[in-house]
Amino acid sequence: MKTASPEAVTAAIDARRERVNEAIATDLPIDEPDRLYEASRYILDAGGKRLRPTVSLLVAEALGEVPPLARDYRTFPTLDDATEGSNDPTGGETIDLLAAAASIEVIQSFTLVHDDIMDDDDLRRGSPAVHREYDVETAILAGDTLYAKGFEFMVQSGARPDRSVRALRTLARSCTRICEGQAMDVSFESRTDVSIPEYLRMIERKTAVLYAAAASVPAILLGADDATVEALYDYGLDVGRGFQIQDDLLDLTTPSSQLGKRRGSDLIEGKRTLITLHARERGVNVDALLANTSGGDDGDEASAVAIDAALSELEAAGSIEYARNTARSFVRSAQANLAVLPDGEARDLLGGIAEFLVERGY
Amino acid sequence: MKTASPEAVTAAIDARRERVNEAIATDLPIDEPDRLYEASRYILDAGGKRLRPTVSLLVAEALGEVPPLARDYRTFPTLDDATEGSNDPTGGETIDLLAAAASIEVIQSFTLVHDDIMDDDDLRRGSPAVHREYDVETAILAGDTLYAKGFEFMVQSGARPDRSVRALRTLARSCTRICEGQAMDVSFESRTDVSIPEYLRMIERKTAVLYAAAASVPAILLGADDATVEALYDYGLDVGRGFQIQDDLLDLTTPSSQLGKRRGSDLIEGKRTLITLHARERGVNVDALLANTSGGDDGDEASAVAIDAALSELEAAGSIEYARNTARSFVRSAQANLAVLPDGEARDLLGGIAEFLVERGY
Repeated sequence: MKTASPEAVTAAIDARRERVNEAIATDLPIDEPDRLYEASRYILDAGGKRLRPTVSLLVAEALGEVPPLARDYRTFPTLDDATEGSNDPTGGETIDLLAAAASIEVIQSFTLVHDDIMDDDDLRRGSPAVHREYDVETAILAGDTLYAKGFEFMVQSGARPDRSVRALRTLARSCTRICEGQAMDVSFESRTDVSIPEYLRMIERKTAVLYAAAASVPAILLGADDATVEALYDYGLDVGRGFQIQDDLLDLTTPSSQLGKRRGSDLIEGKRTLITLHARERGVNVDALLANTSGGDDGDEASAVAIDAALSELEAAGSIEYARNTARSFVRSAQANLAVLPDGEARDLLGGIAEFLVERGY
Repeated sequence: MKTASPEAVTAAIDARRERVNEAIATDLPIDEPDRLYEASRYILDAGGKRLRPTVSLLVAEALGEVPPLARDYRTFPTLDDATEGSNDPTGGETIDLLAAAASIEVIQSFTLVHDDIMDDDDLRRGSPAVHREYDVETAILAGDTLYAKGFEFMVQSGARPDRSVRALRTLARSCTRICEGQAMDVSFESRTDVSIPEYLRMIERKTAVLYAAAASVPAILLGADDATVEALYDYGLDVGRGFQIQDDLLDLTTPSSQLGKRRGSDLIEGKRTLITLHARERGVNVDALLANTSGGDDGDEASAVAIDAALSELEAAGSIEYARNTARSFVRSAQANLAVLPDGEARDLLGGIAEFLVERGY
C-alpha cells in the first residue's frame, strides 16, 4: 500500500480544514444569546487542525472513489446503486457529509472546553482557555451547547434513517467513553501504580474512540458493509492511540510558544503518560522528576531547566524511544486496516495522516 | 374533558416513578470507572418525582389506548397496524418505551448537575449537590456522562429508524434550547430591564422544551400523526411553563426543609422570576428586597424574617396572585391540547398532572 508524502498530507489537511471551517461558520452562527454562542465559537475559531473531520472526509472520498475535493461535500454520493435506490422511499442518494464531519469536530471541542476547566489549564491553542477568556459558568454551558450541536449536526447529514441511527449510536457511545477516559485520566493523577495496559485502556476511551467515530461514521452513513465499517473503526482507534502518545511526547519536547500551552504541563499536573509509566518500570524516580518541575511559571528559566533535566533522564531510561516506537507500531496497525478501502489517492492520504499524527512537531 | 383527581394523579406518578427507577438502576449500572458512575447515579438516587418520564409513559398509554400500567413498557405496542407492519423490514411492532422515558430523565439530571455548579447551589433534593458531595471536576464529568447516556437510551428504544431519528433530533434541539435558556437566566441576573416576554422566552427554553420533548417523543416513536405530535409538544410547553412559574412561587413560600434547598434562593441569587418582574412593573423596589435577603444563612432567623417581609410586599403588589393566575392559564392551555388524545384514564391523568404541577406544595 502506498502512503502519501508529508507534503501531500499537509496540503490535504489544509484544504479540508478550509471546508470544515466554512461549515462551522455557516452551521454554528452567533445566535441569541450572543455571549453563549460567542463562547461556543471561541474555541473553534482559536484554531485547530481539524484532523478528525479531515479523516472523515478522506474516508468518504476513498469509499466513494471520487477524486479528492472534486465533489461537493454537502451533496456527497452514497454507495447505493442509483437504480436500486429508487425503491427506497427515504431517499439516501446523497448526504451532507460536511455536517457529519463538523459533528465530530464540535464534539471534540466540547471535550476540550470541559477538560480545560477540569485540568485548570489556562491556555489552549495559544489563546486563553474558554473558562479564562469568559468564566467557568460560561465555559460549562458553551461545552454543553457544542455537545448538543454535535448531535444536531449528525442528524443533519440526511442519511438513510437506519444509517443515521447507527451513526448517532456510535457518537453517543463515543461520548460516554470519552467521559470514562477523562475520569480515568484524572483518577490516575492520585495513583502511583497505574500500569501500561491501564494507560492504554484510558487513552482508547479518552482519545481514540473519537478518531474511530471520525473514520467509521462516514462509512456507516454512506452505506458501506460491516467489515469496512469495523476496519475503519479500528483504523481510527489505532490512529487515536498513536496521536495521544505523540501528544504526550510533544508536551515534553515542544517549546510552549509552538505548543500553544505550557511545555511539561503533563509532568507538572502529575498526568500519567506512557513515557513516565515506562520510566517508573525502569526504576526512574518519577515522583522526584515531578517535584522538580512543579512550581514556577512558564517564563521561569528554572522551570525550563527542570523540564530539560527530566527529559534527559527519561531519554536515558529509553522511555522516550519506547513511547515513539509504540506510537509507530499503532501507525502500522492503523495502515493495515486501510486494506478494506479501494486503491487511490484518498486511501494513500489516510495512510499518510496516520504517520503524520505521530511524526508531527506540534 | 375529565381531569383526574389529585389523589389519582399522585398514585399514577408514584406507580410510574417505580418503573422509571427500576429502569435507571438497570440501564445505568455502576460501571468502571466507579467514581464517575457513582457520581452520575448520585443525583438520580437522591430522589426526584420523575414527572417528565411519567408524562411520557402516560402519553403512550393514552395513544395506545392500553389500560394504565397493564402493558410492559419494555415491549410497548406501536400504533402500526400489524398486517401493514409486516411489510416493514425494520420491524417496529413494539418499542422500549422505558428507555425513551429514562432518556428524558437522565437529560434532565445532567442539566441539574451542571446548573448547580453554575448557580453555586449547595443543596439539591435535600442532599448536597454533586459538586459538593464530590467536586466540581467530577460533577462536570458526571453531567457529561448523563448527557451521553440520554442519547444512548433514546437510541435503545428500538423504534423504526425514521422515528428514532426524529426523536433524537427533538432531543438534541431540546438540549441546545436548554443551554440557551440557562445562559439567558444567568445573564438576566445582571440586568434590571428584563421584560416579562423575555422571561417567558427564557423559561420556554430552560424548562418547557424538555416537557415538550417528554410529551411528544413517545408519540413520535409510536408512530402518531404530525398533528398529534405537535399538540402534545404544545401540551408539554405549557405544562413546562406552568411548572417553572410554580417553582418560582415555591422557592418563596415553601420551608427549606420541604423544598430540599434554601428558601428564597432565587431572591438571594438575584434570579428574575415572573413574580419579581411583575412587582417591578408595579413599582416595587425589588432591588431593596434583594438587598434585605442577601447575606445570612439558612438557619438564620433574620434571613427567614427578611424573606417573609419580601413575600408580604410581593403579595401586596398582587405579584404572587399574578404568577399563580399565569401558571393556571398555562394549565388550561395545556389541557386543551389533550383533545387530540383518545378518551380515557391516561388522558384524564395527563390533564390532572398539568394541574398538579401548578398546585403542588413542593
